[in-house]
Amino acid sequence: MKKIAILTSGGDAPGMNACIRSIVLTAEHYELEVIGYKHGYNGLIDQEYKLLAPANVTNIIQRGGTILKSGRCDDFHTEEAGRAAANNLQDLNVDVLLVIGGNGSFRGAHHLCKYYKGQVIGLPGTIDNDISGTDATIGYYTAIETALDSIDKVRDTADAFERIFLIEVMGRHAGFIALNAAVASAADRVLVPEDCHDIDLEVDKIIEHLHAVYSQRGISSFIVVTSENLLPGGVITLAKMITDKTKIECRPVILGHVQRGGSPVSQDRILATKLGAYAVEQALAGQNNIMVGEHNSQLVTHPIEISWQQKKPLDEYLLKIQQQLFHTK
Amino acid sequence: MKKIAILTSGGDAPGMNACIRSIVLTAEHYELEVIGYKHGYNGLIDQEYKLLAPANVTNIIQRGGTILKSGRCDDFHTEEAGRAAANNLQDLNVDVLLVIGGNGSFRGAHHLCKYYKGQVIGLPGTIDNDISGTDATIGYYTAIETALDSIDKVRDTADAFERIFLIEVMGRHAGFIALNAAVASAADRVLVPEDCHDIDLEVDKIIEHLHAVYSQRGISSFIVVTSENLLPGGVITLAKMITDKTKIECRPVILGHVQRGGSPVSQDRILATKLGAYAVEQALAGQNNIMVGEHNSQLVTHPIEISWQQKKPLDEYLLKIQQQLFHTK
Amino acid sequence: MKKIAILTSGGDAPGMNACIRSIVLTAEHYELEVIGYKHGYNGLIDQEYKLLAPANVTNIIQRGGTILKSGRCDDFHTEEAGRAAANNLQDLNVDVLLVIGGNGSFRGAHHLCKYYKGQVIGLPGTIDNDISGTDATIGYYTAIETALDSIDKVRDTADAFERIFLIEVMGRHAGFIALNAAVASAADRVLVPEDCHDIDLEVDKIIEHLHAVYSQRGISSFIVVTSENLLPGGVITLAKMITDKTKIECRPVILGHVQRGGSPVSQDRILATKLGAYAVEQALAGQNNIMVGEHNSQLVTHPIEISWQQKKPLDEYLLKIQQQLFHTK
Amino acid sequence: MKKIAILTSGGDAPGMNACIRSIVLTAEHYELEVIGYKHGYNGLIDQEYKLLAPANVTNIIQRGGTILKSGRCDDFHTEEAGRAAANNLQDLNVDVLLVIGGNGSFRGAHHLCKYYKGQVIGLPGTIDNDISGTDATIGYYTAIETALDSIDKVRDTADAFERIFLIEVMGRHAGFIALNAAVASAADRVLVPEDCHDIDLEVDKIIEHLHAVYSQRGISSFIVVTSENLLPGGVITLAKMITDKTKIECRPVILGHVQRGGSPVSQDRILATKLGAYAVEQALAGQNNIMVGEHNSQLVTHPIEISWQQKKPLDEYLLKIQQQLFHTK
Repeated sequence: MKKIAILTSGGDAPGMNACIRSIVLTAEHYELEVIGYKHGYNGLIDQEYKLLAPANVTNIIQRGGTILKSGRCDDFHTEEAGRAAANNLQDLNVDVLLVIGGNGSFRGAHHLCKYYKGQVIGLPGTIDNDISGTDATIGYYTAIETALDSIDKVRDTADAFERIFLIEVMGRHAGFIALNAAVASAADRVLVPEDCHDIDLEVDKIIEHLHAVYSQRGISSFIVVTSENLLPGGVITLAKMITDKTKIECRPVILGHVQRGGSPVSQDRILATKLGAYAVEQALAGQNNIMVGEHNSQLVTHPIEISWQQKKPLDEYLLKIQQQLFHTK
Repeated sequence: MKKIAILTSGGDAPGMNACIRSIVLTAEHYELEVIGYKHGYNGLIDQEYKLLAPANVTNIIQRGGTILKSGRCDDFHTEEAGRAAANNLQDLNVDVLLVIGGNGSFRGAHHLCKYYKGQVIGLPGTIDNDISGTDATIGYYTAIETALDSIDKVRDTADAFERIFLIEVMGRHAGFIALNAAVASAADRVLVPEDCHDIDLEVDKIIEHLHAVYSQRGISSFIVVTSENLLPGGVITLAKMITDKTKIECRPVILGHVQRGGSPVSQDRILATKLGAYAVEQALAGQNNIMVGEHNSQLVTHPIEISWQQKKPLDEYLLKIQQQLFHTK
Repeated sequence: MKKIAILTSGGDAPGMNACIRSIVLTAEHYELEVIGYKHGYNGLIDQEYKLLAPANVTNIIQRGGTILKSGRCDDFHTEEAGRAAANNLQDLNVDVLLVIGGNGSFRGAHHLCKYYKGQVIGLPGTIDNDISGTDATIGYYTAIETALDSIDKVRDTADAFERIFLIEVMGRHAGFIALNAAVASAADRVLVPEDCHDIDLEVDKIIEHLHAVYSQRGISSFIVVTSENLLPGGVITLAKMITDKTKIECRPVILGHVQRGGSPVSQDRILATKLGAYAVEQALAGQNNIMVGEHNSQLVTHPIEISWQQKKPLDEYLLKIQQQLFHTK
Repeated sequence: MKKIAILTSGGDAPGMNACIRSIVLTAEHYELEVIGYKHGYNGLIDQEYKLLAPANVTNIIQRGGTILKSGRCDDFHTEEAGRAAANNLQDLNVDVLLVIGGNGSFRGAHHLCKYYKGQVIGLPGTIDNDISGTDATIGYYTAIETALDSIDKVRDTADAFERIFLIEVMGRHAGFIALNAAVASAADRVLVPEDCHDIDLEVDKIIEHLHAVYSQRGISSFIVVTSENLLPGGVITLAKMITDKTKIECRPVILGHVQRGGSPVSQDRILATKLGAYAVEQALAGQNNIMVGEHNSQLVTHPIEISWQQKKPLDEYLLKIQQQLFHTK
């Protein structure tokens, strides 16, 4: 084995650069050459790439974003795209392609395996943590921290004014960021897709909870953290629903793209470094069409399709104590 | 003189607690009693107050929000409210009322002077920095830093995806936060009310700039920082306007209430501490119907009405270099 | 069961307040009364305590330190102290004592069980992470982050000047903070007690590594992260040893007590919240002389003596890639 | 005028990169060429330089350190060095040299003017703020913030244990960082060179203050912030002096090189951007042997020797309220 290629695909996540660095330095150790495609699968199709030597990854472990740029490539599921990509990899004598990204990127990797004679390995990189086969994904810890930092700030003003804030965080269709940020910020309630099956019912529960708090403590601040994509219009609609029923003003806050950026926290840098090194070792061991992950503090591999075929559950205990214990009165 | 009262009013700002602490400790030095009204002028009318001893202000210098809570009191401009407040102050033998807040709060203070026999002194506390008579207001530096921190994060993902982001920051009708955050974050353009008289023209300038950047660097990230209240719908409308004309997707981000909270940065804690101590000294000197401020590193007093009667200008040089120098190509 | 008591003991750790909050709110749910002893075991002996109601734990989840104060109590291993403590608990009709602290505090808890008829449960709270029976301890994640933040800053100046820095972090006799901070900060080398058996040999390895870097890259910055307590004089001695042998100036930096403080990061707040709730549930289940922990994402209990009788190992893979992979050249 | 050269010299300071960026972009606007010497005056003597185009300064505004590296050059005061540097500049047809650094660097710039036919302009960049002719220096605001952030953390543990901490901050022979960090962190006392003429007397004052606090509040935490270079052995000696006299344990903390690094805060980025742009404009205006600065919100120039010939005073009011008001009891 001689040559590795890397690409970062889908939504960028803090720690992707730390992962690229780890791959490049591990490859150097094993005397492998590394190239990086730019803009995700787009660069693979357009043959846009550059050599990645150790000097190219100096002083990037702490930087958000990705030095390889990312991109979405909606047509990559076609046979034409798959063949083109495979040909390009073979033209450059690439032995292994490492794909850092989320579920969509992993599906692309799986698709590519049909046409490409080399190996393909996925490294889970997304703030949403919605990939089975690994306890955490690269970028997830930083996103929680960023959301928490913002909610801590909103709570200052919520407390000063004794107001109701509805704060929408990212997570695509998973509630990992919302649940963790809610617990860590002492939010009064959380709405996550895994536990929110009837939005009207949830609104009623929030209102009941709100009244309980008011009757107990008097007017007070109240914070609800919600996942995105729970209802059309998100927290803006939700705020209207609550205000319509209670005549109490609610302020919606959408944290937005801030959550994708920032210097990665230590846990993301460490996970990225471990997965990068481990992926190179798995490449050397001849693995193909797999993903790497960390489960119960052990590095693991899985068939890549496990990442989207299995639904990754929330921490049930955490959800229970957030919803039930702290808020029955 | 024996007794001082404090209230915090209007939008809360980081550093209000540091200011309360400074007032209480300075009053202790001069052997004055201090009470704090809660919820701004509402507490003054409702006689909701508490004693403030040194033990009550321990470990608050670093905390956002205000331990006295804040509030808006829309009826405070009436004679009835003014007389009620004056009576309440006199009933408690309060000699001086210190009001920490923005322009609206200062107008309330000025109104109160018509009915109240004691002294009233305003301390400028607002993130918007839109108060004449002082170079900076308590909370302003922290708001810039919070906005900057968020824009730095958005830039990571903007760079990774080579996308256009429009980021709306606070400031009410002033561009201080927007201009400073834009310069500090190396934003490509800034829109501030002081310099934005025709939004269509500004959109054209942004598009021209965007095309220049694209033709020079190829597709690239591009960040516009805008003040709030520039046009109906804010950055969401603005994003549509640009996309309609260019077919390029723009992502709007509204930083929102995050900007009011957070632990105050050093400059806000220091300003708050100086203004708090100075206000007590001015109270002892018999001053009334004034505001305190800092101008050219000197503590100053002004008739309180100067705060809203004079328009405080942006730093012209800073605006020039942001708009002209760095972006002609 | 009616009444729970809490104390925080030994070195304070970020997240202790989050844990206290969780215990109090969970107890409220189960209609239990809670008191908190002050200054660790000292308060237990001196009967210095206060009631802890939900209102006492509002707005503390984000605060470093401990509202109960901590303290060391060197005499607590005596029979006299054990009996006095047991009597005091029984006088107040305390059913369960929850001890948040490290190994020393857990030994105290175990000792107390000999004399006390009620239950004692330990919750692992220390930045050092040197407690078996739990994957992480409350405060550990924040300490890594604080160390990382400082090393990131030192690296700026190391790079600007191309200097050698030796940075000493906390950890008592364990290398958890050092190893994780070193990997996350892209440090060139790490010295941890688990892997450092001959300091002269380690110095030789550092010098060899240093020469390799210099010959490859030219003069360059170089950062070594070390645990405390590795050799008399710590990094100051180490710097002299390296300078004596190489004539190259090394700058020692001792991060010190900064590492114990600060607002807890999300992972510590969440762990603290889970362990607090779980400890109350275990108390209700009648458990005694145990510790609670989290292992492989599951909440667990162990006999409390496991915490110090078993040696908790470092992550071998992480140590390998830090020492071997990235630094052979 | 055609060509500008830049160098960064002496201790690095956050914001130096923002300043380099501003110079390069302003020069681009005026169609000037820019080169950057590496390692301060060393690179000027060794002809180690590189071209600086806009692409070289992308994404550096937020980074600590200096992309040009810094360095000290002890021999630069000699005629030989001055002539060599002048010759090198003339060989490359450099019209203006911009020196970003502190007093020592400014002396070097002044010395160079004796031999060099072109222009030399100094831009004040140092965390110490000990340069007359400008209210603040590039890096100063960030250093205060970094020190404050650390002291806030130490206070957590000081409060938890009710301990005495002595915290030594940087500043060379000036107390700017110490005084501002002390006020902002609500430290109990501050020791600065401008106000500390007899260390034994100061120790007595600290002890008297300590006793007053203890008699009033009982055992309590107590924090003293001191400048570096106040006495041999710094805070370690100071801690021994206090312990010898009081038998109370004091913990010394030296914040060290952490204070030079980190992403610059907004005020440093803005100051650096303004001074960089203004320096290029002054270069175009033909100025020589001057420094640029900002005083009372106006950009100014001064003969460069003013920077070290005048002693820059501390804010007297701030010192007064820190020493006298808050701590008489």
